[in-house]
Amino acid sequence: KTEALGDALLHLTAVGTGSWKWGPNGHGAILLVNCDSESTYKKTLDSEVDEISKVSDLQDMSKMILRTNGPAELPEGYKLTMHISQTTSENVRVFRPRTNEVPYLGGKTELEFFVEGLHFPDKDFDGLITINLSLLEPCGKDFPETPVFTDKVVFHVSPWIMTPNTLKPVEVYVCSTNDNYSFLKSIKNLVEKCGSKLKICHEYMNRGDRWMQDELEFGYIDSPHHQFPVVLDSPRDGDLQDFPYESILGPDFGYVTRHALNEEVSSLDSFGNLEVSPPVTVNGKSYPLGRIIIGVAATRGRNMTQVVQDFLWAQKVQEPIALYSDWLVVGHVDEFMTFVPAPDRKKFRLLLASPDAGYKVFKSLQNNGHGKAEMFPGLPEAISVNEILSDKKLQAENRYVQNCIDWNRDVLKKELGLDDEDIIDLPILFKVLEEKTHPRAVAYYPDMVNMIVLGDQLGIPKPFGPKVKGRCALEIEVCSLLEPLGLKCTFIDDLAPYHKLLGEVHCGSNVLREPSPFKWWNLEL
Amino acid sequence: KTEALGDALLHLTAVGTGSWKWGPNGHGAILLVNCDSESTYKKTLDSEVDEISKVSDLQDMSKMILRTNGPAELPEGYKLTMHISQTTSENVRVFRPRTNEVPYLGGKTELEFFVEGLHFPDKDFDGLITINLSLLEPCGKDFPETPVFTDKVVFHVSPWIMTPNTLKPVEVYVCSTNDNYSFLKSIKNLVEKCGSKLKICHEYMNRGDRWMQDELEFGYIDSPHHQFPVVLDSPRDGDLQDFPYESILGPDFGYVTRHALNEEVSSLDSFGNLEVSPPVTVNGKSYPLGRIIIGVAATRGRNMTQVVQDFLWAQKVQEPIALYSDWLVVGHVDEFMTFVPAPDRKKFRLLLASPDAGYKVFKSLQNNGHGKAEMFPGLPEAISVNEILSDKKLQAENRYVQNCIDWNRDVLKKELGLDDEDIIDLPILFKVLEEKTHPRAVAYYPDMVNMIVLGDQLGIPKPFGPKVKGRCALEIEVCSLLEPLGLKCTFIDDLAPYHKLLGEVHCGSNVLREPSPFKWWNLEL
Repeated sequence: KTEALGDALLHLTAVGTGSWKWGPNGHGAILLVNCDSESTYKKTLDSEVDEISKVSDLQDMSKMILRTNGPAELPEGYKLTMHISQTTSENVRVFRPRTNEVPYLGGKTELEFFVEGLHFPDKDFDGLITINLSLLEPCGKDFPETPVFTDKVVFHVSPWIMTPNTLKPVEVYVCSTNDNYSFLKSIKNLVEKCGSKLKICHEYMNRGDRWMQDELEFGYIDSPHHQFPVVLDSPRDGDLQDFPYESILGPDFGYVTRHALNEEVSSLDSFGNLEVSPPVTVNGKSYPLGRIIIGVAATRGRNMTQVVQDFLWAQKVQEPIALYSDWLVVGHVDEFMTFVPAPDRKKFRLLLASPDAGYKVFKSLQNNGHGKAEMFPGLPEAISVNEILSDKKLQAENRYVQNCIDWNRDVLKKELGLDDEDIIDLPILFKVLEEKTHPRAVAYYPDMVNMIVLGDQLGIPKPFGPKVKGRCALEIEVCSLLEPLGLKCTFIDDLAPYHKLLGEVHCGSNVLREPSPFKWWNLEL
Repeated sequence: KTEALGDALLHLTAVGTGSWKWGPNGHGAILLVNCDSESTYKKTLDSEVDEISKVSDLQDMSKMILRTNGPAELPEGYKLTMHISQTTSENVRVFRPRTNEVPYLGGKTELEFFVEGLHFPDKDFDGLITINLSLLEPCGKDFPETPVFTDKVVFHVSPWIMTPNTLKPVEVYVCSTNDNYSFLKSIKNLVEKCGSKLKICHEYMNRGDRWMQDELEFGYIDSPHHQFPVVLDSPRDGDLQDFPYESILGPDFGYVTRHALNEEVSSLDSFGNLEVSPPVTVNGKSYPLGRIIIGVAATRGRNMTQVVQDFLWAQKVQEPIALYSDWLVVGHVDEFMTFVPAPDRKKFRLLLASPDAGYKVFKSLQNNGHGKAEMFPGLPEAISVNEILSDKKLQAENRYVQNCIDWNRDVLKKELGLDDEDIIDLPILFKVLEEKTHPRAVAYYPDMVNMIVLGDQLGIPKPFGPKVKGRCALEIEVCSLLEPLGLKCTFIDDLAPYHKLLGEVHCGSNVLREPSPFKWWNLEL
């Protein structure tokens, strides 16, 4: 009889059910991690209930409903209790009475609870949270109550999701420094063209650290009831280190970070070394949210810190690809690759830096009688096409760089399911700097692949290539490769304030984009 | 060209391929954790290669083959290297040259490597291990080599797998103590009947600790090339604590344990509280290796230690079910449930202790004029059927116990997909002991569900029930329930050496069984 009482009486429910399944035919409730700044709710010790300090916080939470359909009162001594296992309870907070006991309101009623996640999926947390509700039956004064019926709801915490270059830009972030006024103006013009918003991080906050790309990565979390952007703060911690927490975290703008444990943070921990591809299908397996791309050492060397790698892999919905980037002095994947939207094929192209393509441009200039035209025209470092082509050391260095990029090209083709036709090689030369143990590469002239992509507007580092009939041969070549895709190329002078400090336009900017229309819980995993 | 050289030349292979997929249409290589005792290989620092101390160790390892089909020698300066990521490398050992460099033997050759796992899947290790092989190309004396081709093999470490009562017994383990001679003799007779082997743990080793069930759990690991049993050593650590390591670990008998971290070990950590169901299908989802069953607290109370729970869940192939066992003084699931083989339906029955069924037997005795027949006949604690039935306190206690068991019955029906016809209720009464904070239950007379199951032979605690025409009414009832399934009931007197110390036949024994014929890697996960 008590069983029947329980079954008829109680139903603990949320959007989903007592289990969780991925995919379009899946089911299950979804939870957001409360990582935005309204979440500093008041914990009053003498209160029976966790208080929710601001109404807007409610939007972030998932509703859980206890539906009852029974007598006006529970039979004498019966009780409802809610139970969350100890390991689970570290990852979730339910706004409910402080005791385990849950009030029974009687008749046909619905009691609402609000649930929020406290941690993102990580190496030791698969993102699943189970909340149990039991009806306890009294067994006389000498015995504890026994459970006669238990219902449960399983939630999955939303993963942190990155946004590829093919998604619409919303806000563009750059630093203002004492030497980048004209660069800022160029970016402002570009941002106006694409209709998004420019956000400038001023010097009192950036303290001269201009590498906006490297300190943070924008992503978002999503649920059927709410979605908002979340910034991942890099363990890099340059002079920009306070910016994500102080200036980006806010109402409906979440924040998450990972700190390196007993590991040295290296240049590979900067988030110029963390990118994401547009949606791809690889051997029949689809990645509708794209795949995360990071750079690591080939066998040994500098690496992205393990806690960040663990975090990225644990999100599951954008399975990461590890490229080899330690061959570069700075060591970021955005120094040799990016993605641009395209109207055809896979709806994007992969752009790769290519010394071979670079030499082709220079040789063609020489063959056409422009051997005396100068790279960096009018600048102290000016050097003729002939001189560049006769530099055997530079050739050897670029053969080495081409080898390194070719290996990454193979990995990208395989892991993203790309054909050669999906890839465009941009003419970029590198040079190799002698480091103590390991010679490593930097761009010889502004690294055009390190561009900012804002819809069909591309902000490309101005290469200062040799001029033919008053126009830069490198710009002409790049335009001829990209304009047929409907892309508009704007070349931005970043030579002094960025290139000479070993970065370019992409390194010096960051873009908040609209979330993907694809819902992560519809993934087949 | 170098790419072609790599592709043509190299193929790193094992049983599987460069990725891993569960299921009958899956693929991938498999690794065993080297947890048996031959594995104390000699690590000689001055040697270039990890030496394998005993030939038999080779059987435990997975072969990985580097197939080459190329020129007699690699072109000048080319190199092969093997790379395992740092986190992965904690979990695997490849017997290979100590340097990363791998010899190129030339022509059409195969180079064999032997690989062994070092850790079982756990909370922070999903069991997957990737080994990469790269062909490095020289880039002149001033540059490091660059990878031109990389192949990889992905291994999955075998999970630790438990064996249900329906699998064939191989060896039966019991302790010899100074007071259990006749019990031992009964077990010996039973073991002889079913053709398995009796292993006695002598007193110098058990130091009086007779609870063979509680100190360890037998399981196995499996791969296409080899399988062997592995004992899981409980953190219980009674006086039997050295037995698993000292006496069971051996060549082709592995050992694994987990130590509680900052947690008190409780009685729920004994492995009488760790069982496994026969194969089941639940709502269309099949568990061909069965499901692990453990006992925990309902809401708060004693619990199985987290590290052991984490280990069990991480094995994945026998997804655990948590029952409520904290209502018992000893707190083990084997005090109220077991499984026996059956010829029909799901090929097994779930047996549950049932106070209701117990009272039914006693009332029927009274109704049939046997009210004066005595429980524990001829013993000092003898008590008549009438006296038992008139004890209101005992009735209340058994109502409480029945409630606790009923809740578990519901969970088992739901999680194992059972109907009422799959369950047999055995007539067992309990009594409740007053403990400081919590009244908890023990069996009132020998707890028949705590039996040893050896094929169709059941060794059941002798209940010392009231006699009718010289035969025990409880034994008659149990035989009438089980014999129609083709099972043979032997009632074993465990009253003094086990029952009075709060355990029974199952608690005092352990059974090593044959592995399941089902291969874990064919599971759809």
